[in-house]
Amino acid sequence: MEKYIKDPIHGNIKVDPKLIDNPYFQRLRHVVQNGMAYMVFPSMRHTRFEHSLGTYHVASKMVDRVVKKSLEEKFSDDFKEKIRKLALYHDIGHFPFSHTFEFALEVLKYLNRDKYNEVINLTGFSKDLFKLHEMMGIRLLEEMGEKEIATLMREVYKDKSSDELVNIARLIINSDLDADRLDYLQRDSYYSGAKFGIIDPERIIITMRITPEGYVFPPKAIDDLEHFFLARFHMYSSVYNHSVIEIYNRVMAYFIAFAINESILKLPSDLEEFKTFTDEQIFLALVEAKNKPEFSHFYSSLVERRKYKRALLQGSQAHDLLKIITKNEKEFYQTILRYKGKIVIGDAELRTSTNNIKIERKMGQRTYLKDFKEEDAVTIPPERHRIYIGAYDDDSAKQIMEYFEKEFSINISSEFKP
Amino acid sequence: MEKYIKDPIHGNIKVDPKLIDNPYFQRLRHVVQNGMAYMVFPSMRHTRFEHSLGTYHVASKMVDRVVKKSLEEKFSDDFKEKIRKLALYHDIGHFPFSHTFEFALEVLKYLNRDKYNEVINLTGFSKDLFKLHEMMGIRLLEEMGEKEIATLMREVYKDKSSDELVNIARLIINSDLDADRLDYLQRDSYYSGAKFGIIDPERIIITMRITPEGYVFPPKAIDDLEHFFLARFHMYSSVYNHSVIEIYNRVMAYFIAFAINESILKLPSDLEEFKTFTDEQIFLALVEAKNKPEFSHFYSSLVERRKYKRALLQGSQAHDLLKIITKNEKEFYQTILRYKGKIVIGDAELRTSTNNIKIERKMGQRTYLKDFKEEDAVTIPPERHRIYIGAYDDDSAKQIMEYFEKEFSINISSEFKP
Amino acid sequence: MEKYIKDPIHGNIKVDPKLIDNPYFQRLRHVVQNGMAYMVFPSMRHTRFEHSLGTYHVASKMVDRVVKKSLEEKFSDDFKEKIRKLALYHDIGHFPFSHTFEFALEVLKYLNRDKYNEVINLTGFSKDLFKLHEMMGIRLLEEMGEKEIATLMREVYKDKSSDELVNIARLIINSDLDADRLDYLQRDSYYSGAKFGIIDPERIIITMRITPEGYVFPPKAIDDLEHFFLARFHMYSSVYNHSVIEIYNRVMAYFIAFAINESILKLPSDLEEFKTFTDEQIFLALVEAKNKPEFSHFYSSLVERRKYKRALLQGSQAHDLLKIITKNEKEFYQTILRYKGKIVIGDAELRTSTNNIKIERKMGQRTYLKDFKEEDAVTIPPERHRIYIGAYDDDSAKQIMEYFEKEFSINISSEFKP
Amino acid sequence: MEKYIKDPIHGNIKVDPKLIDNPYFQRLRHVVQNGMAYMVFPSMRHTRFEHSLGTYHVASKMVDRVVKKSLEEKFSDDFKEKIRKLALYHDIGHFPFSHTFEFALEVLKYLNRDKYNEVINLTGFSKDLFKLHEMMGIRLLEEMGEKEIATLMREVYKDKSSDELVNIARLIINSDLDADRLDYLQRDSYYSGAKFGIIDPERIIITMRITPEGYVFPPKAIDDLEHFFLARFHMYSSVYNHSVIEIYNRVMAYFIAFAINESILKLPSDLEEFKTFTDEQIFLALVEAKNKPEFSHFYSSLVERRKYKRALLQGSQAHDLLKIITKNEKEFYQTILRYKGKIVIGDAELRTSTNNIKIERKMGQRTYLKDFKEEDAVTIPPERHRIYIGAYDDDSAKQIMEYFEKEFSINISSEFKP
Repeated sequence: MEKYIKDPIHGNIKVDPKLIDNPYFQRLRHVVQNGMAYMVFPSMRHTRFEHSLGTYHVASKMVDRVVKKSLEEKFSDDFKEKIRKLALYHDIGHFPFSHTFEFALEVLKYLNRDKYNEVINLTGFSKDLFKLHEMMGIRLLEEMGEKEIATLMREVYKDKSSDELVNIARLIINSDLDADRLDYLQRDSYYSGAKFGIIDPERIIITMRITPEGYVFPPKAIDDLEHFFLARFHMYSSVYNHSVIEIYNRVMAYFIAFAINESILKLPSDLEEFKTFTDEQIFLALVEAKNKPEFSHFYSSLVERRKYKRALLQGSQAHDLLKIITKNEKEFYQTILRYKGKIVIGDAELRTSTNNIKIERKMGQRTYLKDFKEEDAVTIPPERHRIYIGAYDDDSAKQIMEYFEKEFSINISSEFKP
Repeated sequence: MEKYIKDPIHGNIKVDPKLIDNPYFQRLRHVVQNGMAYMVFPSMRHTRFEHSLGTYHVASKMVDRVVKKSLEEKFSDDFKEKIRKLALYHDIGHFPFSHTFEFALEVLKYLNRDKYNEVINLTGFSKDLFKLHEMMGIRLLEEMGEKEIATLMREVYKDKSSDELVNIARLIINSDLDADRLDYLQRDSYYSGAKFGIIDPERIIITMRITPEGYVFPPKAIDDLEHFFLARFHMYSSVYNHSVIEIYNRVMAYFIAFAINESILKLPSDLEEFKTFTDEQIFLALVEAKNKPEFSHFYSSLVERRKYKRALLQGSQAHDLLKIITKNEKEFYQTILRYKGKIVIGDAELRTSTNNIKIERKMGQRTYLKDFKEEDAVTIPPERHRIYIGAYDDDSAKQIMEYFEKEFSINISSEFKP
Repeated sequence: MEKYIKDPIHGNIKVDPKLIDNPYFQRLRHVVQNGMAYMVFPSMRHTRFEHSLGTYHVASKMVDRVVKKSLEEKFSDDFKEKIRKLALYHDIGHFPFSHTFEFALEVLKYLNRDKYNEVINLTGFSKDLFKLHEMMGIRLLEEMGEKEIATLMREVYKDKSSDELVNIARLIINSDLDADRLDYLQRDSYYSGAKFGIIDPERIIITMRITPEGYVFPPKAIDDLEHFFLARFHMYSSVYNHSVIEIYNRVMAYFIAFAINESILKLPSDLEEFKTFTDEQIFLALVEAKNKPEFSHFYSSLVERRKYKRALLQGSQAHDLLKIITKNEKEFYQTILRYKGKIVIGDAELRTSTNNIKIERKMGQRTYLKDFKEEDAVTIPPERHRIYIGAYDDDSAKQIMEYFEKEFSINISSEFKP
Repeated sequence: MEKYIKDPIHGNIKVDPKLIDNPYFQRLRHVVQNGMAYMVFPSMRHTRFEHSLGTYHVASKMVDRVVKKSLEEKFSDDFKEKIRKLALYHDIGHFPFSHTFEFALEVLKYLNRDKYNEVINLTGFSKDLFKLHEMMGIRLLEEMGEKEIATLMREVYKDKSSDELVNIARLIINSDLDADRLDYLQRDSYYSGAKFGIIDPERIIITMRITPEGYVFPPKAIDDLEHFFLARFHMYSSVYNHSVIEIYNRVMAYFIAFAINESILKLPSDLEEFKTFTDEQIFLALVEAKNKPEFSHFYSSLVERRKYKRALLQGSQAHDLLKIITKNEKEFYQTILRYKGKIVIGDAELRTSTNNIKIERKMGQRTYLKDFKEEDAVTIPPERHRIYIGAYDDDSAKQIMEYFEKEFSINISSEFKP
């Protein structure tokens, strides 16, 4: 018995309550979609729960665009339902504050390897084979008795399998034009009030055909495709990777790492505890540590909104520097971690990729496919790096400036903003 | 130095960061606007923080509509700024989950009078002279050093003062057509996806004039006014007082009361602790009590979304019953509280009032004012009562049915829904 | 081979080009949807063409809501397609400026009975059995070879047939909650910028079931239904029957009647000529008559936007007066027509009816239906009359005031606005 | 006495009725904004009238962003009002079907030089010094007694004057980021239903400063600027220069030229006649010529929507070909015109320019300006050419293919679409 859930983006989402009434899915109501973005865009309080429903809705439409004569039998209603379910559950393994927790894990790796391993162990994987929330998602799906969906998730996100059905699932769930993006671009635009992500997914879905080799579009869809990829680019540039937001995300990540290290934030010891390992736990850890001298800067930044001073490096400077840092990651973190989170540092790579998208052309009687990027009139740079540096106070700012001067011969003083 | 904050409802809200960068105002980021409404409308995760900014924005426009020759001197820029600030801070005293906490207090009154008094004492008032969050707001404004705003808040919400300036502030902050409603109707529509609250506040503001005696509108504004009042009525009927949401609000209220009673939820002992007395604290109390036999039903309802069976009484039946219950409130609660929250009960009164709104008519050369309600072509019933009854399981449902049969000779069995 | 047409209201409308690529349907691009409404809401330039596509789109969704076991066989795909086609073509017979032309015909009846009959004859009916555009529509459908749709149109709009299938078609095409209204309320809101008509048709369609006896809704749809009927009421009150617009509509109607009378506007002599009998023809007649003394006031009003002075009678006064006028319609028009359109008069009746809409209630095990209006908490007055009086100049205004004083003992001088 | 006009884009536009109640401005209600775009996007029926009001509204906000200490005195309220008025009247000289008439004039030049000169003479200019509608606008402003605005229009659109005030007016009325574009991108998106032009003009206006040397923006505005320029690019690519629309625009242009040549369309002999020289006149000419053998193809295409077969050349092929054609324009047109409009040809150049837009950068203590395009991460190709070829029937298609083969050695047969 399906029912409708009201959604401001898609109107009314039809879904069987049995799919959503389980504790792991309900838990997503307590994991915010965009980490600390609400510090700049106050209304971005939406959660992974709504986004998961939206992704399910879009994927339900996309499964009907799969066309290939020879596939017809294999691409059964049963397999369609699997794709829909994976769309619904694709974010089920997210830790509190979504990707911000993954930043925390990078820090924890150098701060406390045992605790780091504890997190990885929770996922049931022996080491971090791919991203935290996907590993966790697979574990939860198994726990929920959804073995087939767990297997499909593994194939879609990790395995290089070239099975035709898996390829199609991957296109719909985890590709450059997947249901995930078709939902979140609009949704994050809607909640932030930023106009960058307003696209026309209906038109994209109407014009697309999905084959195991990729998406195929007619030439008249080129403007829509460009519009979509630029929308994504601008949402990253101005919202997701907004420098003030990214500094807050790093401060939060450093806090989480230090709080785990000091056992102020208790890690879930099993899946039962994971059910309530949510944003609220992080907030409570912040409150608990509020008066501890080594933690008060986190509280005043993340709760009382005292801004860190911040510097932003971009372009080739960021790109070159990132190479050096990556090579000496361990030493670098050891230096930075000495400042106990009064100095934070992070990077972002604005990427745009248009793989697996083809335009169908006609030459006389012959029909052939070209890669979308060859058609593309508007050029988005293939990569764009940013390094974010935050310092709690003048003293910390001075230290990090001296460090950059000495270690990398880069003067970042002029970049620092109050 | 003012800056702009992006808001999906009003576009860009101009505000001085000094007004918002204080811990009591930032705390509102952690108090959800509509209690448990997100259990039915998942995307209603917006908070009192955004709504307060929006109210400030609307009030800023309304102060320019005040017209009265004799007032011009008294209604200074200084007083305008006071009204704007009160608009910004009008919700600053909200406890976790907003009005849901106020329901909890009603229950607590009969469950544990000492703890009840502890909450009232926190507000600095000796007894509950008016609503919880307004009393608390006054206290916080005093603590923040905003004595004048605290005084104005007291005058606006409580005192019967007929001072002209206070009247104007009351019209803008706390009347049937105030900045509060002009913001939240649109905002709650936007986040829920329900279309009922989409009005045209710009047109209302353009056509209104504010005098100490009330709002004055030209006849051509009648449709807009009707539209506004009906929007409010329908948002109440279908969102705020949605029966499933109201049951969740009561379950939450009973949980809060029992959790305070059993010291699972610790009340803030001073204003410093109030700064972090937020929604997260309630969630954590739920988690803590999860495995206690007398609390597990709250957890399974509020976190895992197991629905209570529910009955809804409406119309004259609800109206009459409410009278009886109110007369014997104490006994009634004593009976209900024996079920430890496995039976919850609550009421709502959908009211609509159009006081202080006049239409300016012409008769020949003469101009005179009529009350808006006399002009009103569309009639909304002056009151509409609802009683919500929730029961955790079949056994509780049976008990409450028997109680109603015996005590009030009302058979509610046919109303119960799974 | 179906294609998609972009539409701001419904997104992408799927339709077979064969259905729309015929001269009678393309002609609707040249018939404005709302008569002279653009004189007050400049952006209301949309036409019957877009609205017809939208109605088709909505009707396509509604045919899937028809439920009745015993009907299943009769309500074939073929009959569904007939309903969809009738939805598409329901306005095909509209004369220039839509309903404004129908006002013109009322005037023409008393001005020149021969010409009046000429218009009726064009429809192929011997006398005006029902509304002009429906009669014309039936004629055109026959001409287009769509005999079955023509027959269905006759049954739906005119015949009292109680055939089950016809009843269903009538509910979808011509009832208080038909596809027509579900399209135009939103569309006219969108183009005008007025917020009154923003409803949620998807929710209405999701919750409705269509039976030969009427629509059946669950109780939870009551707010949506109220919202829909109030939206309609307010769109009438503030847009369609806006007094300035209605005066322009009457001035245009009187112009058309006088222009036909004087052969300045040539009536189409056959269906071939009807293909190009569009808004443009009226404009050209206005231009042609521009310098004729008996027509210049029309030009200056309708093209140069010189406003008529206007009086508006409402409520019981309008209601009573209308009765008297209707009784003596002939004499009344003979008087008014002497002023050659320098005095215009018209009436509107804001009606709201909720026939054929039932709410499904449960009482214990039993299910029964109640009329929606009995459930309705919000009361819209069953009728509301308006009489619009326009006068080109002071002299005409004086004449009409004297006439009303003398004939009806009503002093309308205080109502007149410049 | 200002009043508000409802507008779906800007809400409520405040304007003095005296500015709009003149026949030349009211005439714009009868000139469609986007030529034949409604043949593909049926709802694009909006006119130059609404757009002019919108441009006025945006310009009114922009005049407040002008900053330069030394200018303060000169940039008086009086001059602001002049800019606002020019914004309102900037399109007042548009001929029927806006730019489509300008295409017609290009054709008329080679078809009938006398008639061509007649049109130019009407503008009061001795030869076509700049675009038709600007010349006509200046003439009309003089006729309306608005000499100062006429002078400013001449300076803004034509003169190379480097007067500071004129520069500012030019930036606001006729630049790459002017009030004109800030209105029409949104408006045309809204009416078409295409999502490409949804931008955030408020944020652009909030962040801009206007100096006589150009716009100055802070770095944080870069995403908004990119978004704006890409919105414009995509609206051109997918709406304004949509190949089906452009063919219809050319067919209309050829019809207008031939109809003038054959005196089926009578040119206005003076400004009085220009008042009613509107879209309706073109439609009536089409109807009049309907049965003439040399004109029936126009009627069947433009009224009955029989599509021309069409070929589209793009990229370097279009670019190179255009060079050749331009060099031999006269011969080329002489060849094409032999087909009496059964073959039509046209070109479009999608251009994007970001002149006069600077980003303000800081380097240590020093502030300096960089051109926006140097900052621009997303690259739009500086020009993109398209050549549109339309053929009424197979025979015409064959002829034009042979001509292209023979004359330019280009085989366009594979490009032709039914």
